[in-house]
Amino acid sequence: MTEHSLSQYCKNRIHLINEALSSYIPDESHPTVIYQAMRYSLFAGGKRLRPIMLMAAADAVGGNGLDYLPVACGLEMIHTYSLIHDDLPAMDNDDYRRGKLTNHKVYGEGMAILAGDGLLTAAFNVMLSQPNVDPAVLVDVVREIATAAGAAGMVGGQAVDLASEGKNIDAKTLEFMHQTKTGALFKTALRSGAKLAGASEQQLIALTNYAEQFGLAFQITDDILDVVGNQDKIGKPVGSDIKNNKVTYVTLHSLDGARQLAQTSVDSALASLNGFGAEARILRELVEYLITREA
Amino acid sequence: MTEHSLSQYCKNRIHLINEALSSYIPDESHPTVIYQAMRYSLFAGGKRLRPIMLMAAADAVGGNGLDYLPVACGLEMIHTYSLIHDDLPAMDNDDYRRGKLTNHKVYGEGMAILAGDGLLTAAFNVMLSQPNVDPAVLVDVVREIATAAGAAGMVGGQAVDLASEGKNIDAKTLEFMHQTKTGALFKTALRSGAKLAGASEQQLIALTNYAEQFGLAFQITDDILDVVGNQDKIGKPVGSDIKNNKVTYVTLHSLDGARQLAQTSVDSALASLNGFGAEARILRELVEYLITREA
Repeated sequence: MTEHSLSQYCKNRIHLINEALSSYIPDESHPTVIYQAMRYSLFAGGKRLRPIMLMAAADAVGGNGLDYLPVACGLEMIHTYSLIHDDLPAMDNDDYRRGKLTNHKVYGEGMAILAGDGLLTAAFNVMLSQPNVDPAVLVDVVREIATAAGAAGMVGGQAVDLASEGKNIDAKTLEFMHQTKTGALFKTALRSGAKLAGASEQQLIALTNYAEQFGLAFQITDDILDVVGNQDKIGKPVGSDIKNNKVTYVTLHSLDGARQLAQTSVDSALASLNGFGAEARILRELVEYLITREA
Repeated sequence: MTEHSLSQYCKNRIHLINEALSSYIPDESHPTVIYQAMRYSLFAGGKRLRPIMLMAAADAVGGNGLDYLPVACGLEMIHTYSLIHDDLPAMDNDDYRRGKLTNHKVYGEGMAILAGDGLLTAAFNVMLSQPNVDPAVLVDVVREIATAAGAAGMVGGQAVDLASEGKNIDAKTLEFMHQTKTGALFKTALRSGAKLAGASEQQLIALTNYAEQFGLAFQITDDILDVVGNQDKIGKPVGSDIKNNKVTYVTLHSLDGARQLAQTSVDSALASLNGFGAEARILRELVEYLITREA
């Protein structure tokens, strides 16, 4: 599959994801004040990577990813809420994200906290509206997503990050933060798509391996982009990790070392897909794209 | 049933709820930093009114409320997260709740935001772990709870409250805020208990009426306690509504008028239970207790 067809696949899916998100959190909803704040961040240019990965995993096991838009969009709403709260002054204190003012810079801190709360709550509502899936399977999938997003997952990683501010952290803590802050949602996206589409136990194990390597490659390239990226494309200042004295894969392994590690993870992710046929082509293209991405 | 036996029922249920909550959010969980902050507010002396109401509603329709501890405790976790976020400087900016320092005064603003996020996410995880209920019924119940807790419910009411700060609000806006900020969770507690225990459509309608009148009586007595309450018992300064120029049932209807309104709501709530037998005795006692409560 060519880069062109991967980008066509993503363009098409992003369009459908955006339509679905807009139907779940409609423009004219009451009370306006909270829905506007929620929609502002939900439509602030996200790449929709997590819902795309859920759908691509469903495709890979012979299902149709488009059947699972509610659960897929729930993941995007969880991701968006986490960005709103991470950007708050009490957390990372960021004024811009993807080149746009952050939620609290537009709506104020209190409303931004509530917009995040509203999106997190809506995510569970939307996911549980998923039709044409055995309710017992749906309950299992949504519980796994809650675990990945919660205190033992994404929220826990953010808490450790916050508590580590200004401290030297060891490699083990860094790994925990990466696995929870970004890795956990990627992994649950892949596993959810697979489970919803009726994956075998063997397929689920293979996709879990793929997801872990994908998450690692994503984090390493993020660290690389912070050093060599284009500010306009990544939407935040280049070099902020170094400025903030952050331990990253680049500071630990040098730029070349980090690039090698990223390539190793990509190769390992691809190897996990050996037992899959052409249905897994989007997953293959996605992880190869990671190495060359500019944002 | 005497006051003594109501208090015995509540004491017994509170004990079991606390044990269950402690098993869902265990003391020794990793990462410690976030679980400690979550547990601090979860065990800060809450009256466990929402889980008790869920269980009493299940009892009222002939079920056993104790069978539904996971969903009941999820409601308490949602209530607790909302208190943590409401107390933040960007919201109500309260230093004390129930006589104890608020979460952000102990753990800092960032960690308090995350503790709330962690509790909200854990609530859905725990509710979806509810055994011995048809998964389709469970999905319906948890979705209704998400709606009550979300942007069209509790979060929306808080957003309107925040946006109304320092403004004159009309009676309709006040009513919306009450119905969403406190009423929505009470109503969904009653309805969830009823649905989980297999209530008939007629029973569900009656308990919905009961819940609406209960929520109204609760809000009115809250407003009354702010004027005539004992600071030690209610855990916050008396007279803060007047000091903050808040529109309340007392400012709108005078103290005597508010007391009459509360009694009318209690009578109406009791009338909703006419079709029920002795199984509804806790619900009858609970709403009568409202009128005489001191905190």
